[in-house]
Amino acid sequence: MSIRYISSKLAQQIDEQLMNASGAFSLDQLMELAGLACAQAVAKVYNKGKYNRVLVCCGPGNQGGDGLVAARHLGMFGYKPTIYMPKPGSKDHYKRLQTQCENMSIPILPPSSSTDALSHALNSSDVILDAIFGFSFKGPVRPPFDAALKLIARSGLPIVSVDIPSGWDVETGKEGLELGEGVPVLEPDVLVSLTSPKEGVREFGGRHFLGGRFVPRSMAEKYELNLPEYAGHEQIVELPRVKL
Amino acid sequence: MSIRYISSKLAQQIDEQLMNASGAFSLDQLMELAGLACAQAVAKVYNKGKYNRVLVCCGPGNQGGDGLVAARHLGMFGYKPTIYMPKPGSKDHYKRLQTQCENMSIPILPPSSSTDALSHALNSSDVILDAIFGFSFKGPVRPPFDAALKLIARSGLPIVSVDIPSGWDVETGKEGLELGEGVPVLEPDVLVSLTSPKEGVREFGGRHFLGGRFVPRSMAEKYELNLPEYAGHEQIVELPRVKL
Repeated sequence: MSIRYISSKLAQQIDEQLMNASGAFSLDQLMELAGLACAQAVAKVYNKGKYNRVLVCCGPGNQGGDGLVAARHLGMFGYKPTIYMPKPGSKDHYKRLQTQCENMSIPILPPSSSTDALSHALNSSDVILDAIFGFSFKGPVRPPFDAALKLIARSGLPIVSVDIPSGWDVETGKEGLELGEGVPVLEPDVLVSLTSPKEGVREFGGRHFLGGRFVPRSMAEKYELNLPEYAGHEQIVELPRVKL
Repeated sequence: MSIRYISSKLAQQIDEQLMNASGAFSLDQLMELAGLACAQAVAKVYNKGKYNRVLVCCGPGNQGGDGLVAARHLGMFGYKPTIYMPKPGSKDHYKRLQTQCENMSIPILPPSSSTDALSHALNSSDVILDAIFGFSFKGPVRPPFDAALKLIARSGLPIVSVDIPSGWDVETGKEGLELGEGVPVLEPDVLVSLTSPKEGVREFGGRHFLGGRFVPRSMAEKYELNLPEYAGHEQIVELPRVKL
């Protein structure tokens, strides 16, 4: 049985069930493990000798929070992360994650509608972690993310996307959304799906990891997720590459 | 420079600073990473083929919470954990951690002042994770932990202790506390120190791991902790064995 690609609705339902009274997880716990999984995927594919400078691009929602956790762990792993976060999330946990990064002296680009700082940072980065839009993003892309996606796509740097590549529709994939005039979707080299891959990435042809080693077996069985076995104490498992 | 062994007071101060407004970590985050580190240490030393059945012994405080997180991750790693938790903690996060284990179908021994269930569980376990008392424990040992420590010590099973072996004084070590009539200290084979090792384990002669890969460099420097380098994405690092 191969792994199940899930809809936006089911993804949301699973998240809710993990965090409601009977699931009992806190957002902090799940985000910590999700962000750790993303950092591990970066470290697995891009060694810190050659790809030391990681530009972590964070949106304002929970996926941006995953990015901040990943940035902190990447710093711990010996990478040099820099954070691009033009619209910091307003929730308390997001702010705390930001402070944790600041305490580790991880540089955060100044929030600004101009993309000068981003252009400059792209020129001095080796790999990008894309934690901009998550599975609830619907388009169009608002400033400054429209200009940011153009610059990131044009940079030629390898991209690791979290859960759903930014600009892709969670169900219909890379041509499913109206992003706005000239705004490209990202074409990542690596994808880290969280909990279970989403329908929209069925034809993703790059290296594909699964993270989120916290789904109880009973929940995986209920939704027939057919999750693969993780090895040892790893927080990620690589999925077979799709032959396109 | 070798690693610093810290006092009870400094351990408390570091915990407080990590979690106050400027440290910004939540207890949930730190406990998740601490418990994951403990699970990794068990998996590193005791392979799941030969040592599949782990009896996770949890006290009522935060160290018991670390134990519950470890139990959940050990279940994810393919071990068969069982939880002995005769005095469940009353705090909300403790209860949530318990529910998370229940959702994974991890058996929890019935809370009871009798130690029959513990005796039985010891007979069908391969290794013990000792998360009973943490660095703020002062003695004497109250029921049912007095009888429990006797049974655990007598079981002959290998023991992995979290932070400070149960019954040891955090500063003066294994003969520092009045535990009560005939109550033994535990003599673990493996120790997982969290954040930084405590003064009382200076002469611990077994395999010694450090966990807690979340201490910002600035904090480690301020307190001259001289923390060792962790490898790759590991959440634990082994310390040199003490020659006694």
